[in-house]
Amino acid sequence: MNDHRTLRVNRQRLLESIETLGQLGRKPDGSCCRLALTEEDKLGRDLVVSWMQELGLKIQIDRVGNILAVLPGAEDLPPVMTGSHIDTVATGGKLDGCYGVLAGLEAVRSVKEAGILTRHPLAVAVFTNEEGARFQPDMLGSLVYAGGLAVEDTLAMPIDNAATIGEELARIGYAGSMEPGAIRPSAFIEAHIEQGPILASGAGRLGVVKDLQGISWQEVIIRGAANHAGTTPMHLRRDAAWGAAQVICFVHDLALEFGGSQVATVGSLKLDPGLVNVIPREAVLTVDLRNPVESRLQEAERRLADYLSQLSKETGLETFNRRLSRTEPVVFDDMVIETIRESAELLGQPYQLMTSGAGQDAQMLARICPTAMIFVPSIGGISHSPLEATSPDDLELGANVLLQAMLKLAE
Amino acid sequence: MNDHRTLRVNRQRLLESIETLGQLGRKPDGSCCRLALTEEDKLGRDLVVSWMQELGLKIQIDRVGNILAVLPGAEDLPPVMTGSHIDTVATGGKLDGCYGVLAGLEAVRSVKEAGILTRHPLAVAVFTNEEGARFQPDMLGSLVYAGGLAVEDTLAMPIDNAATIGEELARIGYAGSMEPGAIRPSAFIEAHIEQGPILASGAGRLGVVKDLQGISWQEVIIRGAANHAGTTPMHLRRDAAWGAAQVICFVHDLALEFGGSQVATVGSLKLDPGLVNVIPREAVLTVDLRNPVESRLQEAERRLADYLSQLSKETGLETFNRRLSRTEPVVFDDMVIETIRESAELLGQPYQLMTSGAGQDAQMLARICPTAMIFVPSIGGISHSPLEATSPDDLELGANVLLQAMLKLAE
Repeated sequence: MNDHRTLRVNRQRLLESIETLGQLGRKPDGSCCRLALTEEDKLGRDLVVSWMQELGLKIQIDRVGNILAVLPGAEDLPPVMTGSHIDTVATGGKLDGCYGVLAGLEAVRSVKEAGILTRHPLAVAVFTNEEGARFQPDMLGSLVYAGGLAVEDTLAMPIDNAATIGEELARIGYAGSMEPGAIRPSAFIEAHIEQGPILASGAGRLGVVKDLQGISWQEVIIRGAANHAGTTPMHLRRDAAWGAAQVICFVHDLALEFGGSQVATVGSLKLDPGLVNVIPREAVLTVDLRNPVESRLQEAERRLADYLSQLSKETGLETFNRRLSRTEPVVFDDMVIETIRESAELLGQPYQLMTSGAGQDAQMLARICPTAMIFVPSIGGISHSPLEATSPDDLELGANVLLQAMLKLAE
Repeated sequence: MNDHRTLRVNRQRLLESIETLGQLGRKPDGSCCRLALTEEDKLGRDLVVSWMQELGLKIQIDRVGNILAVLPGAEDLPPVMTGSHIDTVATGGKLDGCYGVLAGLEAVRSVKEAGILTRHPLAVAVFTNEEGARFQPDMLGSLVYAGGLAVEDTLAMPIDNAATIGEELARIGYAGSMEPGAIRPSAFIEAHIEQGPILASGAGRLGVVKDLQGISWQEVIIRGAANHAGTTPMHLRRDAAWGAAQVICFVHDLALEFGGSQVATVGSLKLDPGLVNVIPREAVLTVDLRNPVESRLQEAERRLADYLSQLSKETGLETFNRRLSRTEPVVFDDMVIETIRESAELLGQPYQLMTSGAGQDAQMLARICPTAMIFVPSIGGISHSPLEATSPDDLELGANVLLQAMLKLAE
């Protein structure tokens, strides 16, 4: 036991594997483009699979292209699983997803190298199409793995109106035969870069992720009347741009009032007709509300709906809203969270208990097994960009916390 | 004298001339499309010139295509001039501009028919390209006529990168030989539809226009930082959309605070990158400020500039603004205003002293002679639309006020 607690990953090997994978699909601006089920994704998968083979892991590909590599344990028990994704957005960095896969692989490599035989097997997973940048839904592989979408339906989905997911999987050689979910983990931990500024802004080097925000996307339409910007007095206007501005201010103030992890974003706003000298007839905007507590998220949605009614009543503007997308919050498993905290303490590393603001494969795995996540800082909070970066020390730290947590869970 | 004061225009003839001209360039949706210096514009010009010829007026075309038709007076004095434009926007109505030309022509026709010989000559002008819908600047013909732009420079300006203004004038047969401004009026009155909702919203059937708003167009840029909408806490955001919303609210409240004829409009707003789950990096918006008093307009501009500085200081958003266009207010001539008021009183018609929110040919003529305007109501405040309309009674009323004011000025 004492031996295991002093085990550490090989920092150099971890960093080199990140650099090597990051070369594939590299573009002139330094970004990575390995959209799911493209030739570049295949190159990335082939590289990671070759490393898994070198390590002598038992590799299985499931019917939606998820890759599962298992290091056997002393007993025939469900494995302790880690993993993430290696597909990227069109202008991705080399860490988003890849870090979780490669930190997991490095942890397993270190265990194997040290000749440690854990009680539970250890497994590393690579999930298909987490990003959803080329086709939706995002987090597809883990969703199917957790039973949230039928395999046949998934394989029949079209990509770019040219091929189906099934055809693209076959084309790149990753249409496997295992049933998704056939290997049900005893626990799942995903290491990931934060993709936000909380840790980098002073909260520390390590995040223990206790929950994941529910996400509510709505489209709001404000309809007024187009009129001449010069000849229409203020009191006779029904100005859709002004109405949109009120909504932006409202959701911003609502997030501040709710506090905690509540965020609110208007990312898209289009005015019609959009001319300098015409009062806008219509504004179409998106509202992204997130909260880790379902009842609070529902309350935020209710408050927005009430505000739109009130705005309509008081101003004569017509308001409409419709749901674009909605996911409930995920609360991670106390035992797994506690295990990660103990690993951090073992390493003498203070940590921040935090909420994931982004969607993650781990939220799908949480449906079928005890799950939690480890975050390392994103410098400047930047992600989905060639500027995405984490210090080598933090990358090493996160992998060691993962390694120790997996060892503990595999006892 | 007593005879003249009972003289009225021929209502039927006025309405018919409006309908006849409105047929030219008519589109399936009922709108008129006679963009300046197109074949349709030529058809409109030819029709109006034919009516001027039937009336035996002396017709002259100047070098930028302005049409001037003069009914001689008893003495060789500068004429009392009226007029407007007959070019339209792409989806214009049959009244914008045309009403001023045809009410003027009907007034002169009525004078001639009654055998009245005024002391000053009477003149009707049709100015080239008031709309600026096909090429800029707008109010081009009257601008050149008032000496605000050199003839040679004007003729050399390109249209659609295919021809010059000079070539298009020649092509449609309206490259005249008279120097613009050669006939300097003793006074100028333009009758026009209001193109706004003030009269139609209860202010009455007749507007006596005492001034014209100065117009300030600015582009405002708000620059923040693009970040993940889920992972970036509210207090670490620099949200360009929120900054833009603050500016929209500020200029709206500023206009209400200033009161009077002050208006403020944000007609165009673009967010970058404009995605539902990304905090906007940049917002580019236009601000249209109008006030009939130059010092107030400058004050509004200053207040906006101060607000942008303050916003920048308090929020960390960068703010920039640059001038897109600026015209000073025009104050019309007291004597001409008084003459129009007396005409209204003569006709027993209450009137509203008002400000023109839109640019007009009259603002250019005001540079070279005493000038004012007459407004008739626009039903629903609608213009630049096939729905543009004014009641026949109001069209008749405006023409009679114009007729009586011209007779008085021509004494």
